[in-house]
Amino acid sequence: MSGMTFDIDTIRDAADRLEGQVRRTPLLSSPVLDELVGARVLVKAESLQLTGSFKIRGALNAVLSLEDAAAGVAAFSTGNHGQAVAAAAQKRGCPAVIVMPQDAPQIKVDGCRWWGADIVFYDPESEDREDVVHRVIAERGAELIHPFDDERVMSGQGTVGLEIVADLAEGGIAPDAVVMPCSGGGLAAGITEAVTDAHPGALSVVVERTGYDKMARSLAAGQLERVPAVSGAFLDAIGAPNIGQHPFDALSRHEVRPMAVTDEEAKVAMREAVRTLKLVVEPGGVAGLAAVLAHKERFAGQTVVVVASGGNVDPAVFAEVLQAG
Amino acid sequence: MSGMTFDIDTIRDAADRLEGQVRRTPLLSSPVLDELVGARVLVKAESLQLTGSFKIRGALNAVLSLEDAAAGVAAFSTGNHGQAVAAAAQKRGCPAVIVMPQDAPQIKVDGCRWWGADIVFYDPESEDREDVVHRVIAERGAELIHPFDDERVMSGQGTVGLEIVADLAEGGIAPDAVVMPCSGGGLAAGITEAVTDAHPGALSVVVERTGYDKMARSLAAGQLERVPAVSGAFLDAIGAPNIGQHPFDALSRHEVRPMAVTDEEAKVAMREAVRTLKLVVEPGGVAGLAAVLAHKERFAGQTVVVVASGGNVDPAVFAEVLQAG
Repeated sequence: MSGMTFDIDTIRDAADRLEGQVRRTPLLSSPVLDELVGARVLVKAESLQLTGSFKIRGALNAVLSLEDAAAGVAAFSTGNHGQAVAAAAQKRGCPAVIVMPQDAPQIKVDGCRWWGADIVFYDPESEDREDVVHRVIAERGAELIHPFDDERVMSGQGTVGLEIVADLAEGGIAPDAVVMPCSGGGLAAGITEAVTDAHPGALSVVVERTGYDKMARSLAAGQLERVPAVSGAFLDAIGAPNIGQHPFDALSRHEVRPMAVTDEEAKVAMREAVRTLKLVVEPGGVAGLAAVLAHKERFAGQTVVVVASGGNVDPAVFAEVLQAG
Repeated sequence: MSGMTFDIDTIRDAADRLEGQVRRTPLLSSPVLDELVGARVLVKAESLQLTGSFKIRGALNAVLSLEDAAAGVAAFSTGNHGQAVAAAAQKRGCPAVIVMPQDAPQIKVDGCRWWGADIVFYDPESEDREDVVHRVIAERGAELIHPFDDERVMSGQGTVGLEIVADLAEGGIAPDAVVMPCSGGGLAAGITEAVTDAHPGALSVVVERTGYDKMARSLAAGQLERVPAVSGAFLDAIGAPNIGQHPFDALSRHEVRPMAVTDEEAKVAMREAVRTLKLVVEPGGVAGLAAVLAHKERFAGQTVVVVASGGNVDPAVFAEVLQAG
């Protein structure tokens, strides 16, 4: 990926590339939610995006950027990024291979197959995922699309920020803060770049899982810090053990405030998303809203943009969360 | 209401009046849903509307149309229309009174109070609702806003159709059918007028609860037919015992195909709305999608617009529906 760049211009290029290919998701609000938080809350409903999450933006920008896609693309992901790469490859008309542990949930395997991807399984007990991915890439000549540590992917995610800026402009609104989930950092880097370009005074708030705040630790240390991987956690989508170097470098150029939320705070936010906005938001995707609800005092009287980044939650899990309310 | 009219021009006037006051809801699609139905399905997500349903459009158009609103407005409704009238009155800055049975669910009472409305309770065992409403109107001089049998309300609901037409035009799409829930007929009349004005060949499909198909019976008889009221039914929002004269007259001018769905079909559709679109849709609001899913053969290969008209479902009920899947 040497020679690549990431800035407001590459995000604008991504927007041109994705025009008509992804959904322009709405910026929603609810007077009930505003009163609950004591702030003006504008929710970017990226849960309504094609494939149910923002991941299609970065994946599709990367796949459409390839000069020659004949050998196809590869990804390792059991989650939203895997499906997004599979969908992007189908749009480009090139092959995709997704590397997954052999115990991956059937629904996620089916999701990738639905988009026509090949699945290569590995045994997480005896094989190293990176080795498997690199063997697949070597054998097929496929291009690896990293879920976050890739400037093309970050630029694609940044188009979420451009849409936010356009909708704010239409309403004549200047935001005090933009609050979003943070896992590897690709989405946070993209949105921060786009929003602060238009609103230099807006604070970028990145929200992680309590105890697994790798971006917070990395920003404090001035270098990448890892945390133990979370397996089977409720907030699994933001439970990866590491962040990306490129997102870290990009976010380090801005004033970024890290926050963290618990599983319980995420569940409260999922219920409020249903009650006040009629939105299905997945555990990892709701972290931004959870932070705003759990720490209202930090946003009192402000205008806050909250990114709801995905809606892919298992129906049984979702039902359980609703019933616990 | 004598002297009032309802046609494409009054719908366009309503759109001007509501500009910037209501949300422009998205027209969503899902390739998974398309494959499931075997048709191109475009879902108008009116569940994302302010107050969680389309009702605010009609209520607000009626309230904003009043020359003098000082004496306020009145409505009888325990559901979405009551809250919509309360919200509309708050926007206009006039009083609202909502007449409710004394055993109305607390959540609905609170919803109307939240918007600043007065509640007048009556005893459904000993008092007639109509009498109570007319006493309130006489005492206060308030204007009754009927939930569907009112041209101003129908015109407001028709703005849903204008937005559909605009989004279809942007995509260069001509619809074969528009499928929507039907209770009193206000929404169905408004959307049918707006969509068929732009697409005379599009079939209007109105969906009722199986066994309570009062619009179907009325259209067949050429005059209003009543059915017994449904109480406590899953599809309660479309379980009113009668349709309106004005909606009936308006729909009679068009080719309308009635369909009916069962509670079970509605539940399947609620689950598919979550799975494929990440939308929370209430039982009555999902009837259109339920009809398309339950009778795929009638829509095979077509381009079908489906109106998801509201998202106000009790969380416990919603959780139960999801878990039964």
